Amino acid sequence: MIVDAYGLFETYGRLLDEDRLEEWLELFCEACRYEIVSRENRCQNLPLSLMLCDNKDMLRDRVHSLRHANIFNIHFDCHVIGLVRADVGEDGRISAGAAYSLFQSNQDGESRLFSVGRYSFGLRRGEDGLLIESALVVVDTGTIPTLLATPI
Amino acid sequence: MIVDAYGLFETYGRLLDEDRLEEWLELFCEACRYEIVSRENRCQNLPLSLMLCDNKDMLRDRVHSLRHANIFNIHFDCHVIGLVRADVGEDGRISAGAAYSLFQSNQDGESRLFSVGRYSFGLRRGEDGLLIESALVVVDTGTIPTLLATPI
Amino acid sequence: MIVDAYGLFETYGRLLDEDRLEEWLELFCEACRYEIVSRENRCQNLPLSLMLCDNKDMLRDRVHSLRHANIFNIHFDCHVIGLVRADVGEDGRISAGAAYSLFQSNQDGESRLFSVGRYSFGLRRGEDGLLIESALVVVDTGTIPTLLATPI
Repeated sequence: MIVDAYGLFETYGRLLDEDRLEEWLELFCEACRYEIVSRENRCQNLPLSLMLCDNKDMLRDRVHSLRHANIFNIHFDCHVIGLVRADVGEDGRISAGAAYSLFQSNQDGESRLFSVGRYSFGLRRGEDGLLIESALVVVDTGTIPTLLATPI
Repeated sequence: MIVDAYGLFETYGRLLDEDRLEEWLELFCEACRYEIVSRENRCQNLPLSLMLCDNKDMLRDRVHSLRHANIFNIHFDCHVIGLVRADVGEDGRISAGAAYSLFQSNQDGESRLFSVGRYSFGLRRGEDGLLIESALVVVDTGTIPTLLATPI
Repeated sequence: MIVDAYGLFETYGRLLDEDRLEEWLELFCEACRYEIVSRENRCQNLPLSLMLCDNKDMLRDRVHSLRHANIFNIHFDCHVIGLVRADVGEDGRISAGAAYSLFQSNQDGESRLFSVGRYSFGLRRGEDGLLIESALVVVDTGTIPTLLATPI
């Protein structure tokens, strides 16, 4: 199980880094949820999200917007994901998590720390491997992704 | 063995990030040693430590101090730990290591690289999994943790 | 296979961090290729390399130069390597990859992000484990390693 969850996180980060957003989308099941919240808000139990897509169509729209708005890819992402944890619950659901660091480099080759935080994913087994039912990204960094920002 | 050591490092980093210091403490056996040294000093064989607790009571005191001194948690930690190595010695002892990056974010959501370096742990098998006998943290970054600084 | 590739990347990063360049060299087979390219150039299919050694003797020369030019090691490296991927092709060749972050610390203990990017290695099985046939380092960061720069 840990190996499968490890592979899912590896694929997740790599597809984002390689700007393969349409393939990244296929890691999610239809009734999925993708949410980015700040750790500050989460610690205070505030319901505000920095980004919230509560089904796959919303994620599709977002990817579609990104494709049409950013004609030129103005930065490169590099996800360095840390150690992966995976637990199987009594209902067969898999909870998996990992800390991440996300670096962005601009076209002048300047790299900077863009975001650090933690992924907490709910996974289930699909035909071709694990699928993401829920992806919660708790960001320590107070970046406010705008409507057209790329996923973390 | 590599899987168990991997799990230990994962838990170690996550518990620190989530400020669960009392549970983090339980990763250590009673006759433990926790030491932070700078790489500079280590390369020159200087005996100076940035932090040294040579039994679990000293670690307990430290956690206790942190709880009573820092009424408000003034930063968030994020440990992104790299690839894990584990070797079993002839005496059954396990040597395990990993490079780490530690990012800190303040309450304004500003993240910065706080420390990079390498963990070298001596582990032994306890009833519920691996326990830390010795944790050596060799830091490349010249941070001088004060008496009340959080562990790395 | 993933475990072996994982171990190779772990060793690769650790030997560089510990300045054990001669042992690092032994991870490569004789007919190897080591190349550093910028992601910008790679995306545009430009043939420019930041560093190119297309056999092991060239790598040996480089290590030799580093040993004789840098009498004092003026920085410490810390490789924090992310999740590892490995695929076995039909011809038995192994393709393995991982994102990396490389931090450098100077003698004043100041650490900085030096380079982020992605390793894409071609591996084959040798007598004592996997060997590197080709190491492609695609760097997002626009660092231009000079002739005497250390490998990434």
